[in-house]
Amino acid sequence: MACCGGCLCCQCCCNEGETRTPEELTILGETREDEDEILPRKDYESLDYDRCINEPFLDVLEGLDNKKARKYEAIKWILVFAIGVSTGLTGLFVDFFVRLFTQMKFSLVGQSVEECSENGCLALSLLELLALNMMFVFISSVLVLIEPVAAGSGIPEIKSYLNGVKIPGIVRLRTFICKVTGVLFAVAAGLFVGKEGPMIHSGAIIGAGLPQFQSITFKKIRFHFPYFRSDRDKRDFVSAGAAAGVAAAFGAPIGGTLFSLEEGSSFWNQALTWKVLFCSMSATFTLNFFRSGINFNKWGSFQLPGLLNFGEFKCVDGDKTCHLWTAVDLAFFVLMGVAGGLLGALFNCINKRLAKYRMRNVHPKARFIRVLESLLVCMVTTLVIFVASVALGECRDLVSTSNNTSTQGSVNEEVNSTIRRFFCYNNTYNDMATLFFNPQEVAIHQLFHQNATFSPITLSLFFVLYFVLSCWTYGVSVPSGLFVPSLLCGASLGRLVANVLKINFHMQIYSGTFALIGAAAFLGGVVRMTISLTVILIESTNEITYGLPIMITLMVAKWTGDFFNKGIYDIHIHLKGVPLLEWETEVEMDKLTASDIMEPNLTYVYPHTRIQSLVSILRTTVYHAFPVVTENRDNEKEFMKGNILISNNIKFKKSSVLTRAGEQRRRCQSMKSYPSSELRNVCDEQTAVEPAEEGQDILQQMLERRHVPYPNLYPDQSPSEEWTMEERFRPLTFHGLILRSQLVNLLIRGVCYAENQSSASQPRLSHSEMTEDYPRFPDIHDLDLALLNPRMIVDVTPYMNPCPYTVSPNTRVSQVFNLFRTMGLRHLPVVNAVGESCTQGCWRTLCDPVVPQNNQTGFCSGLT
Amino acid sequence: MACCGGCLCCQCCCNEGETRTPEELTILGETREDEDEILPRKDYESLDYDRCINEPFLDVLEGLDNKKARKYEAIKWILVFAIGVSTGLTGLFVDFFVRLFTQMKFSLVGQSVEECSENGCLALSLLELLALNMMFVFISSVLVLIEPVAAGSGIPEIKSYLNGVKIPGIVRLRTFICKVTGVLFAVAAGLFVGKEGPMIHSGAIIGAGLPQFQSITFKKIRFHFPYFRSDRDKRDFVSAGAAAGVAAAFGAPIGGTLFSLEEGSSFWNQALTWKVLFCSMSATFTLNFFRSGINFNKWGSFQLPGLLNFGEFKCVDGDKTCHLWTAVDLAFFVLMGVAGGLLGALFNCINKRLAKYRMRNVHPKARFIRVLESLLVCMVTTLVIFVASVALGECRDLVSTSNNTSTQGSVNEEVNSTIRRFFCYNNTYNDMATLFFNPQEVAIHQLFHQNATFSPITLSLFFVLYFVLSCWTYGVSVPSGLFVPSLLCGASLGRLVANVLKINFHMQIYSGTFALIGAAAFLGGVVRMTISLTVILIESTNEITYGLPIMITLMVAKWTGDFFNKGIYDIHIHLKGVPLLEWETEVEMDKLTASDIMEPNLTYVYPHTRIQSLVSILRTTVYHAFPVVTENRDNEKEFMKGNILISNNIKFKKSSVLTRAGEQRRRCQSMKSYPSSELRNVCDEQTAVEPAEEGQDILQQMLERRHVPYPNLYPDQSPSEEWTMEERFRPLTFHGLILRSQLVNLLIRGVCYAENQSSASQPRLSHSEMTEDYPRFPDIHDLDLALLNPRMIVDVTPYMNPCPYTVSPNTRVSQVFNLFRTMGLRHLPVVNAVGESCTQGCWRTLCDPVVPQNNQTGFCSGLT
Repeated sequence: MACCGGCLCCQCCCNEGETRTPEELTILGETREDEDEILPRKDYESLDYDRCINEPFLDVLEGLDNKKARKYEAIKWILVFAIGVSTGLTGLFVDFFVRLFTQMKFSLVGQSVEECSENGCLALSLLELLALNMMFVFISSVLVLIEPVAAGSGIPEIKSYLNGVKIPGIVRLRTFICKVTGVLFAVAAGLFVGKEGPMIHSGAIIGAGLPQFQSITFKKIRFHFPYFRSDRDKRDFVSAGAAAGVAAAFGAPIGGTLFSLEEGSSFWNQALTWKVLFCSMSATFTLNFFRSGINFNKWGSFQLPGLLNFGEFKCVDGDKTCHLWTAVDLAFFVLMGVAGGLLGALFNCINKRLAKYRMRNVHPKARFIRVLESLLVCMVTTLVIFVASVALGECRDLVSTSNNTSTQGSVNEEVNSTIRRFFCYNNTYNDMATLFFNPQEVAIHQLFHQNATFSPITLSLFFVLYFVLSCWTYGVSVPSGLFVPSLLCGASLGRLVANVLKINFHMQIYSGTFALIGAAAFLGGVVRMTISLTVILIESTNEITYGLPIMITLMVAKWTGDFFNKGIYDIHIHLKGVPLLEWETEVEMDKLTASDIMEPNLTYVYPHTRIQSLVSILRTTVYHAFPVVTENRDNEKEFMKGNILISNNIKFKKSSVLTRAGEQRRRCQSMKSYPSSELRNVCDEQTAVEPAEEGQDILQQMLERRHVPYPNLYPDQSPSEEWTMEERFRPLTFHGLILRSQLVNLLIRGVCYAENQSSASQPRLSHSEMTEDYPRFPDIHDLDLALLNPRMIVDVTPYMNPCPYTVSPNTRVSQVFNLFRTMGLRHLPVVNAVGESCTQGCWRTLCDPVVPQNNQTGFCSGLT
Repeated sequence: MACCGGCLCCQCCCNEGETRTPEELTILGETREDEDEILPRKDYESLDYDRCINEPFLDVLEGLDNKKARKYEAIKWILVFAIGVSTGLTGLFVDFFVRLFTQMKFSLVGQSVEECSENGCLALSLLELLALNMMFVFISSVLVLIEPVAAGSGIPEIKSYLNGVKIPGIVRLRTFICKVTGVLFAVAAGLFVGKEGPMIHSGAIIGAGLPQFQSITFKKIRFHFPYFRSDRDKRDFVSAGAAAGVAAAFGAPIGGTLFSLEEGSSFWNQALTWKVLFCSMSATFTLNFFRSGINFNKWGSFQLPGLLNFGEFKCVDGDKTCHLWTAVDLAFFVLMGVAGGLLGALFNCINKRLAKYRMRNVHPKARFIRVLESLLVCMVTTLVIFVASVALGECRDLVSTSNNTSTQGSVNEEVNSTIRRFFCYNNTYNDMATLFFNPQEVAIHQLFHQNATFSPITLSLFFVLYFVLSCWTYGVSVPSGLFVPSLLCGASLGRLVANVLKINFHMQIYSGTFALIGAAAFLGGVVRMTISLTVILIESTNEITYGLPIMITLMVAKWTGDFFNKGIYDIHIHLKGVPLLEWETEVEMDKLTASDIMEPNLTYVYPHTRIQSLVSILRTTVYHAFPVVTENRDNEKEFMKGNILISNNIKFKKSSVLTRAGEQRRRCQSMKSYPSSELRNVCDEQTAVEPAEEGQDILQQMLERRHVPYPNLYPDQSPSEEWTMEERFRPLTFHGLILRSQLVNLLIRGVCYAENQSSASQPRLSHSEMTEDYPRFPDIHDLDLALLNPRMIVDVTPYMNPCPYTVSPNTRVSQVFNLFRTMGLRHLPVVNAVGESCTQGCWRTLCDPVVPQNNQTGFCSGLT
């Protein structure tokens, strides 16, 4: 809000939309046709990756020599190691209890089924299973009720965070506890959910929390190294944590690093990569160490890399004709990639509709409805598992396995120990039960490594049931990953293809490879990840030679899927209304310049501002940063001395608050023509309030009316009548950027000076005082205005960021976007340096904290 | 050159050094104590990764819709695939001939030795070997004489290129041919050099050349997609090619991608990663396909990933107590990392001294001296190999091998087939000969997988000999990689540790792992690569579980080594005088701002400039870009119409050339106090020439004196006397940036208009005309000035980059550096937007084309 105070660039380029061509309007996405348009939510905030080098920071810098910098670096390494270890231990915890509960459940019910197959008491077994599963899901679902952001896989949220959007509560300890415990019970309940996504989220929370926690516990660290208390450092630790999560989940440290890099590479620094890899390695090997120790009782060896691993793909040693894959197979892999892409797109499409349905019909209702939905899903899943296992399976020979030489025994032993024989005798097994009546990881192992065949009908049926149920499950109010269900779905499909090729066409192929490629294709079609997924899968199989087929399959699957819709995570990011920026601007965006997309209406502060003005600005706007500007008048000499400038200014205009408030209102009015619905909302709220009378009373009113939106003044005056062109386009000089949190902090800590004193008398805040309240800075509405002297003046210059990156109004949007994204900026002032005689401080916060994102263009056009 | 034309920022901050504090001086590295200071060479140029969005580009953009953009994207994919395949085929070519020659040589000489061991004619065998090796080295060395940049591994050059420094001839076809053929013969000659580094260089050349070649062959592509003709695209393709080179060399596609990312991540875009991985995969699997086909006659299978692979590390299946490594081993790995770091540092130190010695004593002499040195190295190497093999080996039992079960046979068969029995009988073998008298890859395999032991004395001796010889060899005038020799050196050390632990301490360890870790430690100590090397080694071993030990070892080795000196590649980059930018600025650099490091003396052009002025500027300066500025006068209104501005300006000042030239001289004079030695050189050259008389004659003189440095005018006038403060600090308004190449192009193509015409009559160049001569734009000295009318006026505004990224003079150096490095800029104007009343066009080319790099600070302070 704020009508363009005096920007020449605005005059030329953005006359409130009238002069925009239809093309521009389309590009800016102002013609909204999609009735399903998801508006960005206001409670999401942007991270600020840029460093604010103001005076308190320089004081810190002054005391920082290379030795201290090294010490600080060493602490970072230790923290990163701690994050990795903690993430590994979290994975261990989840894995241990899932394993415990699942084994308990399956042994209990499996025994009962084996017994009942003779006695005919199957219903009893079913009831046992149902009771257990429903109990688990209930616990999981209630945990999510406590902390709703713990629902789902968490990858969309982490992806958003890494790309600079803060979602409230996403990295809190409570979320962590709910997520970890919730996913444990959700998986134990036999829902078609994975624990990998939640592992990533858990890792990210550890990354965000651990360094902060430490810095609170050990006061020393906090005071010597105030860097950790910034969005910049926190985000770096979060990327390390997320990578550690991937590493622990898949035993894929490199994949984890690339995951963080791929999802968050918009602002990445080189030094980080190495730390992230170290963190991932720590996580993998912590988990590996303890799991090998616990499961095999071989402490000190490392044999079980990740929570999910795919076992060893290898040909029987003696068999010289056996190849994992050949060049001919690549053709099939491409076709499977297409199929995976199509099915993934279908999955995403259905899931999107479901999610929308839930948003409309489930979420507005009472919360326990969500628990009921979870229970319903659980019941149906349990029924399907049970009925399919008991009634739909075929008895298949185990004979083919024993044909092999003894050397492959170790793998097959393990695989064979997990088959289910429900109603099958004489060295046969029930193929459907083997897939359904086992933990999902075991089923994947079966599909990858079981030499005995599965019947095509079983595989098809399994695929369809699994597809539908996992699609329904993702989005239910439990912590739920998507990797394992997708892999299982795809693996059954791949195995089906292998069966057909082997039996109908008598081809010499390795079934396990086809199952793997099928899994990759479907997963790729659903999540549309590229490099990181390739590497994760390679690392999970521990077979470098799978690199090419996996990459080609994923590439084809992604391209096919992208033809129809976006990846599931992007869809959910969009549905949540997260204003995530794309990787790059569309080619056509280059036809626009910065002045086309900037906020033409400017709210600014002066270097020296009265407290009453500051409070007024802070309470009437939602911006998170304000440009510090001076106005250029005819008597330019006066403005040479920045100090005197605003004191004078305020002195001359006795009713400056009024003026400012009136300006605000005018700006609001003129802004209604502006397309950003968000801005309009803010303005509408204000117009509801009655106008005030005169001068000093306004602040008084304001003090009385705390927590009430700031009143709109003179609603009947048209700005166009009142304002002369000169006023409208008053030239401003840009001096720096000050954050809302900084301003509030200054007010709270009483940083100001009296009118008759010099600004040097203003108390100075140290850097640690400035950042003490991070990340939850006090709100202006929490401020007790009665304690403030409205006539005092605040000198913001020591605390503002004097040199943020800026762009000129003529800069092409792609360049602006590039700068904004690469540097991880939250605010990007547009400064006119081309003006003929005078600097025009033309300014705008791009995407702060949220921007309506246009489907058409993918670039932000709104703000606050 | 050019004295500060009128920058307020200069006035405040950089009064020609007098006001600089000693601290600043230290930071700027102006106090040069190191007598060995390597000055940057002038013939290195900076790449420009920034896009210049000027009018011709916009015309192209206009015609570019999403469909065309997709087509363009598809062509990029095809090109990337082609680069990968070509790199793979290059690798195949090298491998095939190396194998052929080596086998030929060893079978010939080996046979002769076996025979001679009875007849006592060893001298004959030695002569045979010497003759063959010397012949090969001679060919290799002569090839390097043809193209000197083909010497060495090429990794320093490629690292420089990826980070934005163009070294002449580094990506030319001739270099490619010399490099590929040269390395083939160097390796075949038995020198202690690897073919991996040259493979990376070859890949990079293919990446740089292939897309350019296509665009010349198929005119269509060139006209529709003029993007490829820019530093930006070329660099992207080079990073893909370099990755493909790594991928082909080590069979490590992910490692290759990370190599490109690690070495060139200063400016990286997300879309590139996926293409680079695809390129790497193509290279690996092309090579794999053909090698598997040729070597095993199994076409269609993929069994031999890279040129160098380490074989399969695995325990004997039956042996349950065998582990590749355990937690206890990690402690030894850390110690080995320290040892590797120390030895690597020693290696680098010796090699650096050698290289310096060569630069001083060998390079200035006749070229054939270099060939002689190569031949000397070859002779010594051959002698050492021969004598050590024949005289120093021990006969060791082969028995221990046969203890194993039959399943490991396939690996051991291969390993055992390559042992040498020189003078050893009864199921024993000569351990020294096995290591020395084999190709290096085979020796590595032996150390990694030979179950029979090597004697500790043999291993120590081998290490010392190899260390000394490979250190001497790296830097000799042949194409030579460093990976394989370092690996072999380290592996012998690791194997030695394993021997000691196994025999003296009776520990249950896997020798191969220790050999591998030793190899990693030494290689890490030498090259100091981190992530990419970790991943390359993991991929080469095809064993994910080695991730942690390799990473820890490399980390420790790097940290230990960094304590003493830099990595070998960085040392050679420094020795070559390449002005490579560091990853980050030192903490203390934040105490400086942009105004401290900018060029205070400005050479600028006006939007409309006479040809005579342009020619004068181009011939008297070495800058690669010029700011387009207007001067602010008192009668500001006049400058509103940019068109008229300079025409008037020229009209009023009849002797504008003179004035300008005089200004230049004055600037030169005032600049002598400026610390950049490079600048001083330029000025000194000019002061030698006699002054000219008056006005119009100057151009005439200039026309006559082509290829002669531009004369210095009025050498006896002191600038301080002549110039008023007003003149010195005349405010300038910055409008854009124009490149030297663009200006020369405009002059050559006659883009100008007569004084009495409007600038609209100036002919327009299309984007393809502007980029047609890329990458070798014509020089101003090649221009026939007689064809130009010096009175015509050139309107540069359509061709300049109107919106380069700019910084304000108060921006901290770390931020400036970050922007400069991340965006891959070549020029970064410093624009004062904080000035009270007027925009100050304060400007400087940072690092263009080369900057003296200060050891102390790592940041550029010079320019041109």
